[in-house]
Amino acid sequence: MKYYSYENFKCDTKKLLLDVKIFEAEVIVGIARGGLTLSHALAEGLDIREVQTLRTELYDKTCKREMLSIFGDCNFKNISRVLVVDDIADSGDTLKAIMGYLELKHAKIEFKSATLFYKKTSVYEPDFWINEAEEWIDFFWERDFKVN
Amino acid sequence: MKYYSYENFKCDTKKLLLDVKIFEAEVIVGIARGGLTLSHALAEGLDIREVQTLRTELYDKTCKREMLSIFGDCNFKNISRVLVVDDIADSGDTLKAIMGYLELKHAKIEFKSATLFYKKTSVYEPDFWINEAEEWIDFFWERDFKVN
Repeated sequence: MKYYSYENFKCDTKKLLLDVKIFEAEVIVGIARGGLTLSHALAEGLDIREVQTLRTELYDKTCKREMLSIFGDCNFKNISRVLVVDDIADSGDTLKAIMGYLELKHAKIEFKSATLFYKKTSVYEPDFWINEAEEWIDFFWERDFKVN
Repeated sequence: MKYYSYENFKCDTKKLLLDVKIFEAEVIVGIARGGLTLSHALAEGLDIREVQTLRTELYDKTCKREMLSIFGDCNFKNISRVLVVDDIADSGDTLKAIMGYLELKHAKIEFKSATLFYKKTSVYEPDFWINEAEEWIDFFWERDFKVN
């Protein structure tokens, strides 16, 4: 398990900003919770005021098949390009489902995705990513705020 | 102008967590953009999966009167307690408007608010806050991701 510090994050987010800025996104959709801090940082770096969020939940009802539900409703008025942001494409299930959902619901909008980490075994490869994830990432936001 | 580093944030957020946990919020509503990183940190610290966002815009149409618009639609199903999160209550206009809006729209839900900073001249005092703001705060998320 590798601790991913704020300093690591700051450095990688700056690299990611240089890549994603060519897309000229007008809105950021952050995937909660993992994508929230990165969404905030990218929104500041790209000077995008509009940040919306979506959240997913995984249900394992039958012990045979997993179902992913998407919560939240995005609203895009006079918008052409949206950047979808998460921390990592691990299994890739979340991002794949969310990109499919958004593209189906908003056919005229161009969506691109950005993450800090991408695992080669992911079913979905983000349009923009910085690091290949080879082990479990212990993100600072998951570690630094435990009060017990 | 005072630079507010990630280390400052980490320390203050831990203090804030100790205060807000007695409220036992089930959902966090983060105010974009300023409240996003804090919302993520509090959600991790409190183990709250559900983070939603609202965004405000200030219009100055007549040069005499300012109008604040609220964007985003929150959805609370079987929820009793919601924590509304922003970085600072400065003028207090944003938080005052958002708390009023949420309380009017969801009369059966108890809302409380939390910020890192509170200015004595604010028209609204958050239920939970850590520092009094005496000068302009240069939050790390506003400074650290400038790529130019």
